[in-house]
Amino acid sequence: MSTVKIWTDADVLKDARVKAVFDDIRATRQSDFVNNVWRALANQPTVLERTWEQIKAVMVAPGALDPLTRELIYIAVSTANGCAYCVHSHTAAATAKGMTAAQHGELLAIIGLASQTNALVTALQLPIDPEFLV
Amino acid sequence: MSTVKIWTDADVLKDARVKAVFDDIRATRQSDFVNNVWRALANQPTVLERTWEQIKAVMVAPGALDPLTRELIYIAVSTANGCAYCVHSHTAAATAKGMTAAQHGELLAIIGLASQTNALVTALQLPIDPEFLV
Amino acid sequence: MSTVKIWTDADVLKDARVKAVFDDIRATRQSDFVNNVWRALANQPTVLERTWEQIKAVMVAPGALDPLTRELIYIAVSTANGCAYCVHSHTAAATAKGMTAAQHGELLAIIGLASQTNALVTALQLPIDPEFLV
Amino acid sequence: MSTVKIWTDADVLKDARVKAVFDDIRATRQSDFVNNVWRALANQPTVLERTWEQIKAVMVAPGALDPLTRELIYIAVSTANGCAYCVHSHTAAATAKGMTAAQHGELLAIIGLASQTNALVTALQLPIDPEFLV
Amino acid sequence: MSTVKIWTDADVLKDARVKAVFDDIRATRQSDFVNNVWRALANQPTVLERTWEQIKAVMVAPGALDPLTRELIYIAVSTANGCAYCVHSHTAAATAKGMTAAQHGELLAIIGLASQTNALVTALQLPIDPEFLV
Amino acid sequence: MSTVKIWTDADVLKDARVKAVFDDIRATRQSDFVNNVWRALANQPTVLERTWEQIKAVMVAPGALDPLTRELIYIAVSTANGCAYCVHSHTAAATAKGMTAAQHGELLAIIGLASQTNALVTALQLPIDPEFLV
Repeated sequence: MSTVKIWTDADVLKDARVKAVFDDIRATRQSDFVNNVWRALANQPTVLERTWEQIKAVMVAPGALDPLTRELIYIAVSTANGCAYCVHSHTAAATAKGMTAAQHGELLAIIGLASQTNALVTALQLPIDPEFLV
Repeated sequence: MSTVKIWTDADVLKDARVKAVFDDIRATRQSDFVNNVWRALANQPTVLERTWEQIKAVMVAPGALDPLTRELIYIAVSTANGCAYCVHSHTAAATAKGMTAAQHGELLAIIGLASQTNALVTALQLPIDPEFLV
Repeated sequence: MSTVKIWTDADVLKDARVKAVFDDIRATRQSDFVNNVWRALANQPTVLERTWEQIKAVMVAPGALDPLTRELIYIAVSTANGCAYCVHSHTAAATAKGMTAAQHGELLAIIGLASQTNALVTALQLPIDPEFLV
Repeated sequence: MSTVKIWTDADVLKDARVKAVFDDIRATRQSDFVNNVWRALANQPTVLERTWEQIKAVMVAPGALDPLTRELIYIAVSTANGCAYCVHSHTAAATAKGMTAAQHGELLAIIGLASQTNALVTALQLPIDPEFLV
Repeated sequence: MSTVKIWTDADVLKDARVKAVFDDIRATRQSDFVNNVWRALANQPTVLERTWEQIKAVMVAPGALDPLTRELIYIAVSTANGCAYCVHSHTAAATAKGMTAAQHGELLAIIGLASQTNALVTALQLPIDPEFLV
Repeated sequence: MSTVKIWTDADVLKDARVKAVFDDIRATRQSDFVNNVWRALANQPTVLERTWEQIKAVMVAPGALDPLTRELIYIAVSTANGCAYCVHSHTAAATAKGMTAAQHGELLAIIGLASQTNALVTALQLPIDPEFLV
């Protein structure tokens, strides 16, 4: 179904750069499961390395936002961009990080409401209130 | 600039339904400032009432997500949908609710990274891993 | 502000292909006003001709949908695609074709609601009901 | 396939708030069929109630736009937002409300043309003609 | 799965306008394979003719951009618009026109990076540098 | 107008990490001009460094696609994502790299046509031809 080959674990063993990234994914996540996005990016080791480094820096490293909040934001962007795979993978990640059904429901409500007001505002072509400018 | 009339406070006084919503906005927010989206929606009292009721229910009422997290999600959706006015108004709202520069920086990093992986995944047309399905 | 030159009427007189399209726009619309999209497309006569031919065929020629309904659909698409210029030009066109404030209000309500349910459905990743398939 | 549980009719019977909405959907539509979007929103009764109230107010109640025109606009927005489920459900709804093949063809032509000119205008970054401003 | 009938070769033989387009597609591409987009557009002969004429003029006729570059741009737009079918069909077309794995990898990297900076810039709401204006 | 402070050259001198990136931008581009996106990202040095490293790797380093082709793809994505600033900055970059008016015209035609067929295909909900699958 994909536009590129999905690498199996046997394929990964044959490429040192790809293997190094997969080893780090498994060690970082403390899980043997490596999902399809990495198996597809394996066709382009440079893109694979750069994407994984970014995920580690933005989603895994300690920071000012807690891990669950980061996943909620990721789901929101993925939904607005219409990425089915990303909605599935980050909803699963958020659930693994403790998202409750109530939090999921509120996330959906915010995404839905923001999409509605975004569209209304675009149709209205509002001038930005001076109070909002830095 | 807008596609409809922006109501002044004097206009609002002449319409009881619109005035009731504006009074509630001011009471709820404990501020006299009412921004342009409400002044434009005033042309359609039914849409005005329904939108404000939703904002109160989704963004103001107590719930499982704290008010700042809700604003971060709102900014994320508004950015992905390309709504300039909404990005400005909700960045201002998040700042008013205590968003730090570090939190804003991490929010930007997540929005940027999610947009990148959303695009990569769409170009790759990945099958969804069975592990992600409920 | 634009990425290409906006042609003045004096520029148009110097290019026979562009002049022919502008003459037809004015004759078809029975108005001397030619808006900026045509003055920008004039830099690419082939794209100009093809776009105008499509507008005439899709938006002007008699058909199964009345002219105002066609403009409402055009506004809806332009809003969802976030095209500020297009929202302005087609809201003006709809008004010229008789759109009432009540119709505009209902159009906004539908655009807003559809944007909300589109986002909810994407976040939910719903399987399509067999009843909907042809 | 969905990110939440799809409620069966047996599940619905166990929750009074959800049952009330489902009863109203069936009574309003005069049909026993309730499609998946409601069965997924059932996980969040508040979102379910609010969404159904909006659908009734915007798509069912009498107004200035006829029911078929409303569905055509809904299809247009859903297409521009890339919501496959929504395109299917609202194309089915439009067909049930009498949309002819000729009307569907013209709807497609307008959606296609608007998407093309939206993109051209964005690439050209046109200034808005003063004639379009209110 | 589609919202309209997909025409078989037997259906095509019964409609002279549709048959003429299919004959031209096969002659132009020097291949007997006609993909589903044309079989679906066949329901609307006018849209079918106009779309095929545009594809020939924009993607097939000699011009200032080589055929492979045109396909790379088509993939980029289709990805950003989230059109799964289009990503598949134009990735196949680009491969047929000689796209290498290295070129595909760089295309993906550009699409990903542009999507990221597009989102960052929208979240930042940057004023356009005067140096960029024509 | 922006949601964050735009750093002046004087501000940049006060932060060693930001200054290092600005020095590298100027050296790499052999120009003293540094546009607003970098002056806004300066508020978040980590995002600034990461974004500039990606731009260098993806848009500047030698590769399988020539520099002008990369810019055309960047414009295409930025247009589809509706990023006005990005359309301006990358159209300027493409012009600096030798884009002719004829090439710009063809780029516009492809972006417009792809946007049209993307929308048609989404409205038609086409099954992917088995011939397109890897």
